[in-house]
Amino acid sequence: MNADNLKDQYLAVRRHSVKICEPLETEDYVPQPVPFVSPPKWHLAHSTWFFETFILNPFGKGYQVFSEDFSFLFNSYYNNVGERVLRTDRGNITRPTIVTVYAYRKYVDEHMITLLDTLNDPAALKLIELGLHHEQQHQELLLTDIKYILGHNPLFPVYSPDSNLVKDVNKETGSVQIAEGIYEVGFQGDGFCFDNELGRHKVYLNAFEISKALVTNAEYIEFMEAGGYQDFNLWLDEGWSWINENKITAPMYWHKINGAWHYYTLAGLQRIAPEAILSHVSFFEAAAFAQWKDMRLPTESEWEIASEQFHWGKRWEWTHSAYLPYPDFVKASGAVGEYNGKFMINTMVLRGSSVATPEGHSRKTYRNFFHTHERWQYTGIRLVK
Amino acid sequence: MNADNLKDQYLAVRRHSVKICEPLETEDYVPQPVPFVSPPKWHLAHSTWFFETFILNPFGKGYQVFSEDFSFLFNSYYNNVGERVLRTDRGNITRPTIVTVYAYRKYVDEHMITLLDTLNDPAALKLIELGLHHEQQHQELLLTDIKYILGHNPLFPVYSPDSNLVKDVNKETGSVQIAEGIYEVGFQGDGFCFDNELGRHKVYLNAFEISKALVTNAEYIEFMEAGGYQDFNLWLDEGWSWINENKITAPMYWHKINGAWHYYTLAGLQRIAPEAILSHVSFFEAAAFAQWKDMRLPTESEWEIASEQFHWGKRWEWTHSAYLPYPDFVKASGAVGEYNGKFMINTMVLRGSSVATPEGHSRKTYRNFFHTHERWQYTGIRLVK
Amino acid sequence: MNADNLKDQYLAVRRHSVKICEPLETEDYVPQPVPFVSPPKWHLAHSTWFFETFILNPFGKGYQVFSEDFSFLFNSYYNNVGERVLRTDRGNITRPTIVTVYAYRKYVDEHMITLLDTLNDPAALKLIELGLHHEQQHQELLLTDIKYILGHNPLFPVYSPDSNLVKDVNKETGSVQIAEGIYEVGFQGDGFCFDNELGRHKVYLNAFEISKALVTNAEYIEFMEAGGYQDFNLWLDEGWSWINENKITAPMYWHKINGAWHYYTLAGLQRIAPEAILSHVSFFEAAAFAQWKDMRLPTESEWEIASEQFHWGKRWEWTHSAYLPYPDFVKASGAVGEYNGKFMINTMVLRGSSVATPEGHSRKTYRNFFHTHERWQYTGIRLVK
Amino acid sequence: MNADNLKDQYLAVRRHSVKICEPLETEDYVPQPVPFVSPPKWHLAHSTWFFETFILNPFGKGYQVFSEDFSFLFNSYYNNVGERVLRTDRGNITRPTIVTVYAYRKYVDEHMITLLDTLNDPAALKLIELGLHHEQQHQELLLTDIKYILGHNPLFPVYSPDSNLVKDVNKETGSVQIAEGIYEVGFQGDGFCFDNELGRHKVYLNAFEISKALVTNAEYIEFMEAGGYQDFNLWLDEGWSWINENKITAPMYWHKINGAWHYYTLAGLQRIAPEAILSHVSFFEAAAFAQWKDMRLPTESEWEIASEQFHWGKRWEWTHSAYLPYPDFVKASGAVGEYNGKFMINTMVLRGSSVATPEGHSRKTYRNFFHTHERWQYTGIRLVK
Repeated sequence: MNADNLKDQYLAVRRHSVKICEPLETEDYVPQPVPFVSPPKWHLAHSTWFFETFILNPFGKGYQVFSEDFSFLFNSYYNNVGERVLRTDRGNITRPTIVTVYAYRKYVDEHMITLLDTLNDPAALKLIELGLHHEQQHQELLLTDIKYILGHNPLFPVYSPDSNLVKDVNKETGSVQIAEGIYEVGFQGDGFCFDNELGRHKVYLNAFEISKALVTNAEYIEFMEAGGYQDFNLWLDEGWSWINENKITAPMYWHKINGAWHYYTLAGLQRIAPEAILSHVSFFEAAAFAQWKDMRLPTESEWEIASEQFHWGKRWEWTHSAYLPYPDFVKASGAVGEYNGKFMINTMVLRGSSVATPEGHSRKTYRNFFHTHERWQYTGIRLVK
Repeated sequence: MNADNLKDQYLAVRRHSVKICEPLETEDYVPQPVPFVSPPKWHLAHSTWFFETFILNPFGKGYQVFSEDFSFLFNSYYNNVGERVLRTDRGNITRPTIVTVYAYRKYVDEHMITLLDTLNDPAALKLIELGLHHEQQHQELLLTDIKYILGHNPLFPVYSPDSNLVKDVNKETGSVQIAEGIYEVGFQGDGFCFDNELGRHKVYLNAFEISKALVTNAEYIEFMEAGGYQDFNLWLDEGWSWINENKITAPMYWHKINGAWHYYTLAGLQRIAPEAILSHVSFFEAAAFAQWKDMRLPTESEWEIASEQFHWGKRWEWTHSAYLPYPDFVKASGAVGEYNGKFMINTMVLRGSSVATPEGHSRKTYRNFFHTHERWQYTGIRLVK
Repeated sequence: MNADNLKDQYLAVRRHSVKICEPLETEDYVPQPVPFVSPPKWHLAHSTWFFETFILNPFGKGYQVFSEDFSFLFNSYYNNVGERVLRTDRGNITRPTIVTVYAYRKYVDEHMITLLDTLNDPAALKLIELGLHHEQQHQELLLTDIKYILGHNPLFPVYSPDSNLVKDVNKETGSVQIAEGIYEVGFQGDGFCFDNELGRHKVYLNAFEISKALVTNAEYIEFMEAGGYQDFNLWLDEGWSWINENKITAPMYWHKINGAWHYYTLAGLQRIAPEAILSHVSFFEAAAFAQWKDMRLPTESEWEIASEQFHWGKRWEWTHSAYLPYPDFVKASGAVGEYNGKFMINTMVLRGSSVATPEGHSRKTYRNFFHTHERWQYTGIRLVK
Repeated sequence: MNADNLKDQYLAVRRHSVKICEPLETEDYVPQPVPFVSPPKWHLAHSTWFFETFILNPFGKGYQVFSEDFSFLFNSYYNNVGERVLRTDRGNITRPTIVTVYAYRKYVDEHMITLLDTLNDPAALKLIELGLHHEQQHQELLLTDIKYILGHNPLFPVYSPDSNLVKDVNKETGSVQIAEGIYEVGFQGDGFCFDNELGRHKVYLNAFEISKALVTNAEYIEFMEAGGYQDFNLWLDEGWSWINENKITAPMYWHKINGAWHYYTLAGLQRIAPEAILSHVSFFEAAAFAQWKDMRLPTESEWEIASEQFHWGKRWEWTHSAYLPYPDFVKASGAVGEYNGKFMINTMVLRGSSVATPEGHSRKTYRNFFHTHERWQYTGIRLVK
């Protein structure tokens, strides 16, 4: 990778964040309805802060920060770079306004572009690449957080009338057979990957058979109508507590209106499309559904090995693997080392990518992870026998 | 009161709400940082909703509501008029935007003005008067809620550079002596009052002596420096728990910076003015301070009787009276009956009014009330021997 | 009062605490199911600790404490006498065993009896008298806490088969009329009273009419069957939240079994006796019931003035007065000053006494107080017009 | 296995539970200080309930249950066999008394012994074997729960003066080398194992080196003194929150007294023995310590393969493996199927056994599991390079 390509990429990625926010009203940028959803304003500022903190401050000669306060306001979880606003308080910070945040983006972009003309320090270039992938991760969250904010408004506002981010259908049927044996998993090659994908290593897999198609709404409704949410035998113990304490009886965004299932989509409230691929289920729901089908979820290694033989990319797919370090995982030193390693506990791995994932940000070795009850991402289910 | 005067009053009151919000950015209208603080947008809409629901719907012939959804969104606590958005969720409702809310205000105002041209139903006129006083109450909250939102932003944004809403000083010294005997308290006369002031009645007061001056910052700092927040003998048991659980060591908005006390004011962060009247203390703090002075807070009857002999109107003054119904209190029927009666428990009465109170909205019989730990209003302390 | 009489009283009171516990199994002495209920073992030890700490330590020459640890373990809320076990942790302290606690009582009693032979310091005698009334207060709590512990056991164990602590019926009907005028309330005379009753003072009362009979179970069932728990117009706002959050639909200890109302009594689970006096309602329920009847609860002054003209003593009767200091209330200095003053907030006054009150521990000026949701005492309702 | 051997085993296992409780006072049987600790009384009754419910009821001809209520009271988490007392409420159930619980044990034992004389149904015999292993699991919990109850009493009561359950020292030094390759893990053979150990399967392991010795108190103190609890770089993100929210600065039961570290042991409060093996650390602490040492915890497969080459059995050893089903895991149908499968989420695997494990209850394929913050078991640390 050279700085020239990087400049094009930089501009493309940065533009895409702004594009995602185009349909928003100023008010939509502000709230944080639950701790795991961040205000759109914060995403725009935080991804900018990354470049200011890790690139412009150390490498931009004589660079003056846009505002001293922003280091404090838009840090997310990097304990190594000073104090930060409590994650649960982001929705109460009305200033800087979104106008100022866009000015911040412009200021940093201009300095980045200038810097990219001359920069050839490989470590810096690598950090910029990381910053772009970091911003792409936030683009995915930006879209799902916007959906959460609008989808929990009693008026169900439309984000974009022609958005069909949920309507995908399966293009394949049948299943893939994988034979028993030793396989290799983990990233290899020259391109970019996150530290948690590194350390390609051997695993031993038993023979298995994995569906080419993801579970559809119609199949899930069958489970619901068969009393799936009422039969504790199907559920993990913590899952059973979770659905009961939170009165969960359907995927997120689903509403039964006059006897018919509807869901909130970015195009507004709509009748459920039965043939569309199911989305917005938690690991608990995915595991209960698999149990009801007398099947199971794949492990992440199984998924990675089989993934070349089916289409993926519409839903983040729950695996039955806990998110843990690969055998040779090494934590980078300093703030960048906080990127992934410290989250490797009490979450499950998702593989693939989703309709919310920006182009060029997915690969078969990518390891996403969420807590077992989280479901505001475009999560789905693929089954294994 | 006739409809003509009422029209002028209506326009003046409605204009004042808008004026309070002039310095705000769009983002400032959105958040609800704690359940007792409402988004400015909500105040503007809710006070409008009152006129639509209680005046235009029943009395405006052929009136079409601005939006069916708004009845649901901007109801506050009136159980009699249908479901409502949970009080704690108001900060997540980004739509309708503030632009739409101002359109809603305009729409309702136009219909109200037209209606006032012909309206002469005394019950309706009385309800409009109530609606105006209701909006004035919300103006006070609007300003204190804005202060809370801006004052909890780490950037301490300025609301208005020439705002001196906290800097008042006492104009009098010395005290007022009141003799033992029977006195009458409660509203009398032709003007407006809330239902909780009605039922003028006799009370028996012992002799007492009440300060003409309110407690100042300097006096309160003396209490703090004498270890007032560390001496449990001065505190009510629940107050002692409150300061310890919440690590309270100073009034709200106070910050010790480089050894000097500062406070957030609507004009920004400033050095404490020692001679200014203390504000933003809870009942717990007021009672502990009085205990430390070996004095006490007045009862609400004492305050009402003595109030003609001192200046008041800068701080809401904590009394040592619980907020309970007067002997002849009668709850109105229907939704308007929910106005005051149902809150008469577990709060303490405040008397007077504050720098945030709109003109014409104060009188000596006015009974305000807050929980014993609340202090985001301009609350102050007056002592009795 | 002289020391001789006091010795007899001392022995009688101390014996009565033990008698209350006679039906208990060792296990019953241990738990603290909710923070406001203390383990019986703790009551027995704490009331003993009072005599050791406030009498034997200062006045018993050469007195050796039974155990250094007990000062720490059995202090209740006296911040002035050192650290104490968190109120919520009492149920986890299995040692000292109840056998040791009885040994502690014996040890302290022997030293007290010896001391009383010679003691004539009036301050000391007064403190002993306070200690005995303190123990009587704990006897009342002991019985109601035992009821709570046994009454929340799914087996509904019997405390005493011939216990009829709930079955009292009204002996009178009709009402008492009190004329408007100045009255005096507060303790007077030579006997014992708590500091919160002192400061006899004048109050002005309007004319009122108060029922001679307390509300019965039958009357309350009528309220329940009329939908009383479902009609928010009857409830204080905090009361409405309380019944909904806690799914309250009947008084404490009531269970609907096969369509018939039962309640747990100290004699076990029984069919509701319709003619018996209602018990175990919160202030919220008392106030809602009064509202439904279009009547109200008396103030504590009204109750005190009228009380000579009706029978009382079976139920603690909720008044509509907040628990606040009398005009001339003076807090004693030191630990004894923590007895009452610091609790004078956010509670309501109860007057009278109950079937659980030990003999000789009631008088018309006695001021009890509980939070508005508490109802594990034998609380009842008397109405005023 | 035949019924004769089983009778001896039955008697031995049942006797051991009683023996563990011999040093207890009646009061010690009652409390449940935290949800994960059960009252000793409950353990004794629940393990008995297992035999009554799963053996005597279905196989004991004409068997009359000891008490209908006990099915409800002493069920733990088996949703398939009816309602149950909320897990968090067990400490408030004072009746049945411990005397009755021992009578219950005797009654069930007598019927079991009689039944074992004639029983030859292999399914029944297998269930009895399961019941005995179930009771042994509870024996381990019984001891650690007793330690929790006594160890959180401010008096630090002694369970047994000659108990040295914490003082073990390492018998070996150095490390074991394991070569890269395919290995088999999971139970094989004729003996008993739990369902979660079944499905022997191949795994691919990279080469690794594992310590023969467990981490000692001295080594852990070194970590503490080097600021281990203050350096967020060493901690998983949830671990960092956990130590900060709970103010954790040392292993459970450790107290710094006059500058010297002590710990509560079943023999009372003692000075820390530096050479003794560390115990009572959470997974979070184990992982942070490993990070500080620049080493890591073993996976459960690594542990199982290497375990034949070192001594184990004193501490439950944290692995870095999440507790998940083995590839061929099959959930049994009915209540027994609830035994393990439904807990396979959000916990980490521990391998080995501890000083609290009853004889004959450990094997190298045994999979124990706890949440990442739990540490009231005798947990320890073994490191891998």
